[in-house]
Amino acid sequence: MGLVYLNTVWIVVAAAMVLFMEGGFSLLEAGLVRTKNAVNVTMKIFVDLTVGVLAFWLVGYGLLFGKDFDGFIGTALWNAPETINMGLKLPNAAFVLFQMGFAIACVSIISGAVAERMNFKAYVVIAALVCMVVYPVSGHWVWNANGWLAKLGMKDFAGSAVIHAMGGFTALAIAWVLGPRRGRFNSDGSANVFAPSNIPLASSGAFILWFGWFGFNAGSTLDASNPALAAVALHTMLAAASGGTVTLLLTMFKFGKADPSMTINGVLAGLVAITAGAPYVGSSSAILIGALGGFIVVYATLFVDFLKVDDPVGAVAVHGFNGAFGTLAVGLWDTSSGLLTTGSMKLLLVQILGIVVVSCWGFLAGLGIAKVAGLTVGLRAAAAEEEEGLDMAYHGIPAYNELDRFADIPRSMYDFEESTGITVAQLTMKKESSAS
Amino acid sequence: MGLVYLNTVWIVVAAAMVLFMEGGFSLLEAGLVRTKNAVNVTMKIFVDLTVGVLAFWLVGYGLLFGKDFDGFIGTALWNAPETINMGLKLPNAAFVLFQMGFAIACVSIISGAVAERMNFKAYVVIAALVCMVVYPVSGHWVWNANGWLAKLGMKDFAGSAVIHAMGGFTALAIAWVLGPRRGRFNSDGSANVFAPSNIPLASSGAFILWFGWFGFNAGSTLDASNPALAAVALHTMLAAASGGTVTLLLTMFKFGKADPSMTINGVLAGLVAITAGAPYVGSSSAILIGALGGFIVVYATLFVDFLKVDDPVGAVAVHGFNGAFGTLAVGLWDTSSGLLTTGSMKLLLVQILGIVVVSCWGFLAGLGIAKVAGLTVGLRAAAAEEEEGLDMAYHGIPAYNELDRFADIPRSMYDFEESTGITVAQLTMKKESSAS
Amino acid sequence: MGLVYLNTVWIVVAAAMVLFMEGGFSLLEAGLVRTKNAVNVTMKIFVDLTVGVLAFWLVGYGLLFGKDFDGFIGTALWNAPETINMGLKLPNAAFVLFQMGFAIACVSIISGAVAERMNFKAYVVIAALVCMVVYPVSGHWVWNANGWLAKLGMKDFAGSAVIHAMGGFTALAIAWVLGPRRGRFNSDGSANVFAPSNIPLASSGAFILWFGWFGFNAGSTLDASNPALAAVALHTMLAAASGGTVTLLLTMFKFGKADPSMTINGVLAGLVAITAGAPYVGSSSAILIGALGGFIVVYATLFVDFLKVDDPVGAVAVHGFNGAFGTLAVGLWDTSSGLLTTGSMKLLLVQILGIVVVSCWGFLAGLGIAKVAGLTVGLRAAAAEEEEGLDMAYHGIPAYNELDRFADIPRSMYDFEESTGITVAQLTMKKESSAS
Repeated sequence: MGLVYLNTVWIVVAAAMVLFMEGGFSLLEAGLVRTKNAVNVTMKIFVDLTVGVLAFWLVGYGLLFGKDFDGFIGTALWNAPETINMGLKLPNAAFVLFQMGFAIACVSIISGAVAERMNFKAYVVIAALVCMVVYPVSGHWVWNANGWLAKLGMKDFAGSAVIHAMGGFTALAIAWVLGPRRGRFNSDGSANVFAPSNIPLASSGAFILWFGWFGFNAGSTLDASNPALAAVALHTMLAAASGGTVTLLLTMFKFGKADPSMTINGVLAGLVAITAGAPYVGSSSAILIGALGGFIVVYATLFVDFLKVDDPVGAVAVHGFNGAFGTLAVGLWDTSSGLLTTGSMKLLLVQILGIVVVSCWGFLAGLGIAKVAGLTVGLRAAAAEEEEGLDMAYHGIPAYNELDRFADIPRSMYDFEESTGITVAQLTMKKESSAS
Repeated sequence: MGLVYLNTVWIVVAAAMVLFMEGGFSLLEAGLVRTKNAVNVTMKIFVDLTVGVLAFWLVGYGLLFGKDFDGFIGTALWNAPETINMGLKLPNAAFVLFQMGFAIACVSIISGAVAERMNFKAYVVIAALVCMVVYPVSGHWVWNANGWLAKLGMKDFAGSAVIHAMGGFTALAIAWVLGPRRGRFNSDGSANVFAPSNIPLASSGAFILWFGWFGFNAGSTLDASNPALAAVALHTMLAAASGGTVTLLLTMFKFGKADPSMTINGVLAGLVAITAGAPYVGSSSAILIGALGGFIVVYATLFVDFLKVDDPVGAVAVHGFNGAFGTLAVGLWDTSSGLLTTGSMKLLLVQILGIVVVSCWGFLAGLGIAKVAGLTVGLRAAAAEEEEGLDMAYHGIPAYNELDRFADIPRSMYDFEESTGITVAQLTMKKESSAS
Repeated sequence: MGLVYLNTVWIVVAAAMVLFMEGGFSLLEAGLVRTKNAVNVTMKIFVDLTVGVLAFWLVGYGLLFGKDFDGFIGTALWNAPETINMGLKLPNAAFVLFQMGFAIACVSIISGAVAERMNFKAYVVIAALVCMVVYPVSGHWVWNANGWLAKLGMKDFAGSAVIHAMGGFTALAIAWVLGPRRGRFNSDGSANVFAPSNIPLASSGAFILWFGWFGFNAGSTLDASNPALAAVALHTMLAAASGGTVTLLLTMFKFGKADPSMTINGVLAGLVAITAGAPYVGSSSAILIGALGGFIVVYATLFVDFLKVDDPVGAVAVHGFNGAFGTLAVGLWDTSSGLLTTGSMKLLLVQILGIVVVSCWGFLAGLGIAKVAGLTVGLRAAAAEEEEGLDMAYHGIPAYNELDRFADIPRSMYDFEESTGITVAQLTMKKESSAS
């Protein structure tokens, strides 16, 4: 009785923290992309929080948690989700709210990988489809008590596979079909880096994500009486710290500069990697898992470049590869049945099967919904729109509308050309003629 | 016993979330106004959090929750608020802290509507008066157990009327007396739009407000054993999502661009509209209420323009009109006594009476305190201060002091003119003479 | 039993809020320093959250809370901290996580005072040493049940002395050894002010710190059944409000401008000052303590300038001086044994002894670790690196990489010079020659 009250407060607060992570995704991406597309990535997160949330509430939740059909899919379409009894020590409404944050986290992972060149309408379609079908289906397999992977004993506590690997590999497929941003890769195959536009903004996004992750992982206990609750939170912190330490030092000593975006992605990699096993592993294992996540994100980023897939924020490396690794890690370091802790192979095999199946589902589903979006509204922004920047093309406003701020600078330039009629080009010619 | 401990933690956390919303107001407004006034709107929020909080603690709280006199006003002036027993399953101190966040939310609503042209000292006076008198008086009518509207059975769970409509219509009155920003309306009556200066900043404010709203609404249960707590949080999310969906799609398909500030205001409109009825309506009604809020905010914004009242951030449309609508909506969709759900007219009439009375009080009080501020310190900034921007005029510093950042650009322009002595004007003449 | 579940949730949430404060430090400092060093201060906070956290987990925690040796030091090196039983109604893991936030808060205080001229590697060394040794040692004296100051009855609830004064005076020592930023002080001893680069960014940091402080102070109860929990939160708010009110009005009426950074520091000063006594003083005393903190921060800032120590963000004035004052204030206004409340001198003398000892330890330890960093990796950035800005020097990227944003402006300038080959200098000569 009293426990239900405590669980209600706990999960409502945790859900608010998870939903606040959307702000984190938004600011992180707005800071990592080029300024001319910062409004567009922000608006895509608003799509997740509005269209995505309603899509999940109307359809997705029932497919994920509705009455199971043969272990493959739920069958409670168009129900008010809160009427589906989950048999938790918790009001259904709190669980539904918490799950909403998880569903749209998948889409937000994708939003980063497709940044700077996708047709905005295509993103709306994709966000709706991911929340309605893609996430719920594989989620059902692992998180519905009757899901076939759940029955095999797959362990994915807060979604390294169900949320991150699925979202990451769906993102990989869509980014691949979408193609790279103009000028990202050279004819000789080498890659050009488009530097992040606003590091403080990106860092503020990272801090919000980090804060929200405590709700994401520790909240997944769904029950304050779960004896592992505090350990989950501590392991989450330790893995984030070690993941960030690795990328910080690696970029410092290997590349000579402590790289901000790679350090941020190292922290996120550690967080993603520990998400599946936080309650199942020890604190030293958590540090090790986070540290390995830090290494993986660096080389996975290079690998995605090598595939000539353009992922502006490194979402595939952070969420896809580390989601897969984190799921695998449970099979290695689970205190009760991990290979390296107990010598038993069984759990590891189930985890491998699970991560392969979920990742393939995500990749194939990504190809599918990219096709749907392409055939309906068109997948890619026009070349001119991409050149101009998606902010003006789709939203009619730049991220930083501050001409008034530097009024005297541009005005004097324009006045110069307008009033004098002398353009830079003419000056050049003049110079050349005078030179001859 | 145990419940009191849980309630204490719950309301302290909820209060922290509500007070954090001030940061949301600050960043939202700083992003929506012109750069030259971004520091000023930020400083006004600091006024709310400092002067406003002390004013409410010293005077306002006692008028709101002190021993009732005839249903119209509290009579516990200059008491330490935490000594006033509210008969809650909660320490008084926690309730006082929670209420502080509500009081200054009213002022923050006003701060947006008067942005970019108010005398800073006038704002300090207004913030103090709103927290000391304006909000407590109408708040007493609805939220003090003995308030006359409370006795009539008016239902305003977390303040669609008491906070948002009151703040919104007080803002309308003050903005009207204050007059529009220079150049906002043309002689022919048409309006000029001053584009938001920093969209990522504004969006970060919106995300913080959204996060804090879970504390604002769900925290208003004041008791973790309230069976509606989780539903309140879920309905808050659903209404925000549908409000944002409507403005997103409306601007996309009606105006051809998915408009960021209108989408943000659509989300806020949904949040404001559901605030009165979150625990009283069903989830489908919550979605409907949010969606209607999305439509209302678009047309209310046009209506405020039509009235030639200048509201730089749309605070009147978001908080005033949707606060009124949200209060009305309880009378329509309340599951136990709404007109459309039960056919009973009674509650609707009480809600209408309540919203009319509270809005009128807010509007008249707004006229009054604007008068007081005008007669004491002067209501409006000088034309020169407004032209220069309130940041330099009142705070002596620009929002983005980054000349060092573009050092070579302006310097070379200035050097050009200074060192060569050739001004753009001269170049022009030169050009003309050479042309002739 | 049930209480342990509640405490677990409470402290995990509070710990998340405290760790989120790192984001606050980061944004506040990034906004207060010059743009060319904004990435660097951000990265230093990531060092705290990664290297610092691991250093504290591996070594510091055991020295702080491990089995006491003679009241001076803990002796549980290289233990997994969560295995050290603290005898709390709380899982050890939750307490360890909460303490991590405290340890790195000390380092973050230092990061502000040494901004804009320290060798990045030196900062990594310093962060590790503070978390491993400096904070744990004095922390042990006050917060370990067997610490010698604890046994004397010193009262420092959430760390005005243990965290803030210690961090502030360590910062003073290091900033003194490090020397001022180039151009900060003139030969005649007068000081030059480097204006904050981004006020909205700094304010967002302040709002996050304010939000997190509720977890910092109220969370320090470590127990939801502590009857003072709500009062701690309320007093925290009241002191912050009065501290900010004082600096706001003081700068408004004394200097003619309501100064943003001073107002922010006034709020933080109030928060620091109430941290030691929040549960021990009354609400009126809390307001008075916060107000005095507001005065102290203004004059302490001038005093630090007078000492020719360069503290870019005012960390010494905010945390050092107000940490000391807050500790002292308990001896004056403690309701059960303060000098002004009970006439008893005893507690005040203990508080004075404690604050002197802890501050001296911090100062001397600061000199020591500055020496260590200087001898190993070099303490100060090279003049050229400082001139260029630490962002490019150490991280290879500017905070706001937005040339594309003003593409047409610089490009036309550069094109002008490049394509024409005419430099401003040449234009000048040309003009002069033509003049003659």
